[in-house]
Amino acid sequence: MTKIVTLLSDFGLQDPYAGVMKGVIFRHCPDCQVVDLTHMIPPQNIWLGAIQLERAVPHFPVGTVHLAVVDPGVGGHREPIVIVGQKGTYVGPNNGVFSLALRHDNIHNVYVIQPGRQTPDQPSTTFHGRDLFAPVAAKLAGGLHPQEVGPALAEPLVQLDLDDLQQRVLCVDRFGNVQLGVHRDRWQGGMNKLRLGERTIPFHLTYSQVEAGQLLCLWNSDGYLEIAANGGSAGEQLGLASGQKIEYQILG
Amino acid sequence: MTKIVTLLSDFGLQDPYAGVMKGVIFRHCPDCQVVDLTHMIPPQNIWLGAIQLERAVPHFPVGTVHLAVVDPGVGGHREPIVIVGQKGTYVGPNNGVFSLALRHDNIHNVYVIQPGRQTPDQPSTTFHGRDLFAPVAAKLAGGLHPQEVGPALAEPLVQLDLDDLQQRVLCVDRFGNVQLGVHRDRWQGGMNKLRLGERTIPFHLTYSQVEAGQLLCLWNSDGYLEIAANGGSAGEQLGLASGQKIEYQILG
Amino acid sequence: MTKIVTLLSDFGLQDPYAGVMKGVIFRHCPDCQVVDLTHMIPPQNIWLGAIQLERAVPHFPVGTVHLAVVDPGVGGHREPIVIVGQKGTYVGPNNGVFSLALRHDNIHNVYVIQPGRQTPDQPSTTFHGRDLFAPVAAKLAGGLHPQEVGPALAEPLVQLDLDDLQQRVLCVDRFGNVQLGVHRDRWQGGMNKLRLGERTIPFHLTYSQVEAGQLLCLWNSDGYLEIAANGGSAGEQLGLASGQKIEYQILG
Repeated sequence: MTKIVTLLSDFGLQDPYAGVMKGVIFRHCPDCQVVDLTHMIPPQNIWLGAIQLERAVPHFPVGTVHLAVVDPGVGGHREPIVIVGQKGTYVGPNNGVFSLALRHDNIHNVYVIQPGRQTPDQPSTTFHGRDLFAPVAAKLAGGLHPQEVGPALAEPLVQLDLDDLQQRVLCVDRFGNVQLGVHRDRWQGGMNKLRLGERTIPFHLTYSQVEAGQLLCLWNSDGYLEIAANGGSAGEQLGLASGQKIEYQILG
Repeated sequence: MTKIVTLLSDFGLQDPYAGVMKGVIFRHCPDCQVVDLTHMIPPQNIWLGAIQLERAVPHFPVGTVHLAVVDPGVGGHREPIVIVGQKGTYVGPNNGVFSLALRHDNIHNVYVIQPGRQTPDQPSTTFHGRDLFAPVAAKLAGGLHPQEVGPALAEPLVQLDLDDLQQRVLCVDRFGNVQLGVHRDRWQGGMNKLRLGERTIPFHLTYSQVEAGQLLCLWNSDGYLEIAANGGSAGEQLGLASGQKIEYQILG
Repeated sequence: MTKIVTLLSDFGLQDPYAGVMKGVIFRHCPDCQVVDLTHMIPPQNIWLGAIQLERAVPHFPVGTVHLAVVDPGVGGHREPIVIVGQKGTYVGPNNGVFSLALRHDNIHNVYVIQPGRQTPDQPSTTFHGRDLFAPVAAKLAGGLHPQEVGPALAEPLVQLDLDDLQQRVLCVDRFGNVQLGVHRDRWQGGMNKLRLGERTIPFHLTYSQVEAGQLLCLWNSDGYLEIAANGGSAGEQLGLASGQKIEYQILG
């Protein structure tokens, strides 16, 4: 079976933190494939970490281990956990970073990583990615049974507040495409136009159906409603940024 | 045989798009090596994508599959193609992004990727990198015969206009080295100095032959004429940027 | 045995230089794992290259080959070398970039890479990463005996000046954590507070022991003294940058 570990973090690329996690991973699972999802999550932005993780996780093979570290509470009271799902295994802090990705999976079990069982006895207080999550993710990819990492989680799994997703810009990508919190699979009404302030933006199937630079909305490749500009940046035209509150009406 | 897939795109590194392509690739070819060339091509800049691809492709083993996605026409009329060369195989849109790299290879065949044969029936209209190019590149790396992807390309292969390459800055790299469109192998005359506006820049063999901060020109590691500053940035000193038109004379 | 090659450079991510080195590496060692430490070292900043290398190297398995290219003297008189240590092997220019990492290893031998033995006869004068270091690192990972690369180094190994490390900011990471040159293992006195100009910063064990936004100092995950702000950027609050001279007193 393929052994894949994905990495998502807010470590950035100027420091060797992501590389260090790979060193630890290859020590414990020399033949696995390690895939960077992104390390450019804004520092300590759990919400955007959860968004980007949800965009990536469904495209990986069943059995993939997803390690995510956006972890403002490192060294404090939040538990380091392993979530065993039907499709994947999730390793990271119990702070909600997995809550959006888990909407696409079924949770079987959740365990707390107990230092000293699969990891150093005395992990650092500031880099659990290296000391707890990397060795555990590598060993799980290599076949370790998840219950070997520690006891079942006694407290609840932390969830992000998903109620206001429809009133938020989920993210603005590098192209300036604006992803909104409306998903095709959960949308009941018609979808003809989107009204945003003074603007009315037509719904189409693909970018090339409007003139260069013009705005449109469409279901994007993840099934979410997106505002885009053909060959341009909708985010810049509209002054929108990831995570921002937004008011709009959908006209069926 | 080594199975290598290279990736070049304008996806950037803040979104998980490149990682998602790797998830799809490992699904179809679990034991391949995936190499990022760059994902920092400016959005939809086919020309610079072609330049960077040409700089990288010749250094990979024969049989490597090169996947490139700089694709402003995604979801429109441009065809998704596979170009089978003598040295490598090229997967991406028929928009000219491969035209410079192909100067170093001999084209045997070109095929159109037909959705539903090696890929989902209904690819998204906005992310062919994930839905068409990644599965096809992975399967080709794994040994699929290219004619299994779809019919031969009926229309011409799109080419970039290469006539004005000598009047352009091909690219300015991170060090501020300015690559010009004159190649050692195609240059007949002498090469002693370069005149650019009021400046006369001497030709040398390596950076250290001029004082710190001084300009020189030399044949760079790809065989192109380059203007550099020893320990400094020629691009900044001269105010030059990738793709810019430029007038200069070479004095033999 | 695991075959791992790590890469550290100042090549950045917009150009395909790091990808090209991987193409060469896979040509010579198809089954090795290549790990990027960082390619974001500021151009030609040997000192910061040395710092980042020291932070990463100790976490890799014994036998790892570490290739580092921060190389302002490329094509000049500095020698291309291979340093054989007890824990790892180091490939790059003899300019001090390895001097901090080597404090954690014992040097057995140092060899000069002689062009034409394991590499092209006529390497470029500007890209030794591709032409000398990559093929040598790959072959060493694959089992080549280091003495096959060329003769023993006759001149001394270049060292960075380590005397003033305690008066320098070693680096400021993406989170704004400020790493100072005082190491827990070499610190004899008490550690209660740090005085920096008008400020007195308390010593704690982890970020969450101070209020959000407040400064603290602690031993970081590499064992160095670090000034941090809980959930914020100490580097910004204090106006400190990597490599800067700094005066402070430690109160035991």
